[in-house]
Amino acid sequence: MKAAAPRVDAARLERRLDELAEIGRDPRGGLSRFAFTPAHAEACLLVAGWMREAGLKPFLDPAGNLAGRDRDDAPAIAAGSHLDTVPMGGRLDGALGVVAAVECAQAIRECGVKLRHPLAVLAFADEEGNTFGVGCLTSRALVGDLTQDRMAAIRDAEGRSLADRVAAWACPLPRGTPAEIAAFVELHIEQGPRLDAEGLDLAAATAIAGISRTTVTFIGAANHAGTTPMPLRRDALWGASALVLEVRRIALATAGEAVGTVGRVEAEPGSTNVIPGKAAVRVELRSGREELLAALRAEVEAAARRLAAEYALEAIVDPWDHAAAVPLHPGLHAAALEAAARRGLRAISMPSWAGHDAKILAPHVPTALLFVPSVGGVSHAPDEYTAPSHLAAGTQVLLDVLCHLDDHLNVPRRS
Amino acid sequence: MKAAAPRVDAARLERRLDELAEIGRDPRGGLSRFAFTPAHAEACLLVAGWMREAGLKPFLDPAGNLAGRDRDDAPAIAAGSHLDTVPMGGRLDGALGVVAAVECAQAIRECGVKLRHPLAVLAFADEEGNTFGVGCLTSRALVGDLTQDRMAAIRDAEGRSLADRVAAWACPLPRGTPAEIAAFVELHIEQGPRLDAEGLDLAAATAIAGISRTTVTFIGAANHAGTTPMPLRRDALWGASALVLEVRRIALATAGEAVGTVGRVEAEPGSTNVIPGKAAVRVELRSGREELLAALRAEVEAAARRLAAEYALEAIVDPWDHAAAVPLHPGLHAAALEAAARRGLRAISMPSWAGHDAKILAPHVPTALLFVPSVGGVSHAPDEYTAPSHLAAGTQVLLDVLCHLDDHLNVPRRS
Repeated sequence: MKAAAPRVDAARLERRLDELAEIGRDPRGGLSRFAFTPAHAEACLLVAGWMREAGLKPFLDPAGNLAGRDRDDAPAIAAGSHLDTVPMGGRLDGALGVVAAVECAQAIRECGVKLRHPLAVLAFADEEGNTFGVGCLTSRALVGDLTQDRMAAIRDAEGRSLADRVAAWACPLPRGTPAEIAAFVELHIEQGPRLDAEGLDLAAATAIAGISRTTVTFIGAANHAGTTPMPLRRDALWGASALVLEVRRIALATAGEAVGTVGRVEAEPGSTNVIPGKAAVRVELRSGREELLAALRAEVEAAARRLAAEYALEAIVDPWDHAAAVPLHPGLHAAALEAAARRGLRAISMPSWAGHDAKILAPHVPTALLFVPSVGGVSHAPDEYTAPSHLAAGTQVLLDVLCHLDDHLNVPRRS
Repeated sequence: MKAAAPRVDAARLERRLDELAEIGRDPRGGLSRFAFTPAHAEACLLVAGWMREAGLKPFLDPAGNLAGRDRDDAPAIAAGSHLDTVPMGGRLDGALGVVAAVECAQAIRECGVKLRHPLAVLAFADEEGNTFGVGCLTSRALVGDLTQDRMAAIRDAEGRSLADRVAAWACPLPRGTPAEIAAFVELHIEQGPRLDAEGLDLAAATAIAGISRTTVTFIGAANHAGTTPMPLRRDALWGASALVLEVRRIALATAGEAVGTVGRVEAEPGSTNVIPGKAAVRVELRSGREELLAALRAEVEAAARRLAAEYALEAIVDPWDHAAAVPLHPGLHAAALEAAARRGLRAISMPSWAGHDAKILAPHVPTALLFVPSVGGVSHAPDEYTAPSHLAAGTQVLLDVLCHLDDHLNVPRRS
């Protein structure tokens, strides 16, 4: 692609986000727009209309994702995000990435630029997991991450499979085969406070943070809270409480490379007048660097064993869940930072601390994830807000990265 | 009283404890002998028979307590404890104090000693609170601690009041007016490990520990466990966990004068992937010294405020329950220690960390509470065990204290 650089239309972007935010309003506040509901169908129809304006042909893929592409003679450079929201969610989480992708396609078209590669916009159906209880279900279906058995076992509240649900969904758009993808770029609000707090315009994600969950259960001796002298106690909550503070210390020491959270501590028997004989601590660690995540998990385990010895307890360490960190494409990450710099934007690198459809696409195709600030770090709430200038700037960088991809990606045309 | 000193019959004491332990057996293990059940009636009949052997006339008072007295021309010197058990309890908690008191009466009678004061044995009906959900209900009724309104409001699981329940109770013993009491001595197992651990024979309680319960609720900000940077977190569980360790430190620093327990910590919302925005810590402090208890409560509150500041939280301190420490009679306490020394027993002073009927009687009449060791500190469990030699020694000191009372207590005879 060589021509006058395409520019996004900030007013159109804002107008479309407002229009989309009218669909799926929850009387309690915000948006409750769940996959495969009438509201979702209405949102798809609205976006499909914009896709046509942008020169893309819209259709629903077998997983119920809305896709629009200009042609299909080769794997496409794709941009997008999801159309569903959490219950009482905001107008930007998901919607921004979809509307921005359409805007990029339209800006490219209006500029008269002809891309070397096909362009696709993807509007995933069920990222939040409201309908089937599985996050990113329809992007997983697109890339074929789940076995057929697993796929068939996943059911909605009425017991319907995804295939059945999509087949029965009253959304009057053409159905088609999945768009073949050569690369994917997602623009999203940060969902954290950092960009806003530090007065930054943009972040290019280095990776999607891995999540490691370990339950440490301290075993002591339940006993009478009055008659048991302090020095003879084996209070499991002492170990548990000390571990909560250790998790904090360990995560703080990474200076931003990792976070650590204990969401709750369950002490048993749990009575005011009984010394807890058992206390379980659920430790969650996240980091964009897989090797750091492993080191931190080992550090938490070592702390648990040390504290158990200190308080005369036993520690049972159960690492029950581990989702590896997913690195994003370094070349696209660099291209995004360069584009931001060219546009005079203050941009940084950071891991994505939350999951996104980009996490599902990244192991399969070169993938980038861009963040714009969210005021106060709010997300999954009706008061999600990003300044229009930040929305436009983020969309412009998305467009620049798509153009970079078109210049640099080598995808053989299908014969 | 001046004559050959009466001696307890260790074998009879042991035999009677065994016999009583046959009543109210729980098929799951131990004894479940609850007030106003057929098992309780059976236990009363058995003990009433022993009372008669000891020269006491048994009857049920209006609160359903079994009492036996030799005469009623003046307020009596009383000894006793309770006949009910916790679910799946042991054979000594309560029963020991009753059987030992009968043994003392019988030893006095067999020795031919004539006391200056009437002697009474009290077998309280509902100390553990199984039947009405209120501890020491029937000793409270005896001393008139509860207002008539409060009394009428206390109901069992079927909605019956104590008065109705006692009236309907099929226990074929004579009913009588409450025994008038001039002093009370209770022998009990320690319910803690100290005497056993230190190889001691007996303790004379200085006081019944007061119990102060305070809930400290830390308020922070619930937030995404991934996207919220560590330095920006206001994690309520950090404050809560640090307070658990502070309560430990504060109680340990009293070197045995107080204990402090946190039975559980309730974090909200309680999800693995959400930073707790709220965490409530229930702090229980106990001490036999009321002024120390007040100081410790203030210390815990100060620690809560300091930790709230340290972790950028708010602390709401709610001291919701306070039962003042109840001092026991210093003269009787000294008499018990002297008697123990005369008998060559290793005895100490300590507060009672748990409540007992003696706590109810103490504000009204000179009261003493004696402890014998319980192996491993076990109580409220089927494997409650005290060596026969310790049971006999404790009973002998109980007898000595009753004799001391008879010598030293000045109670005017009724006209």
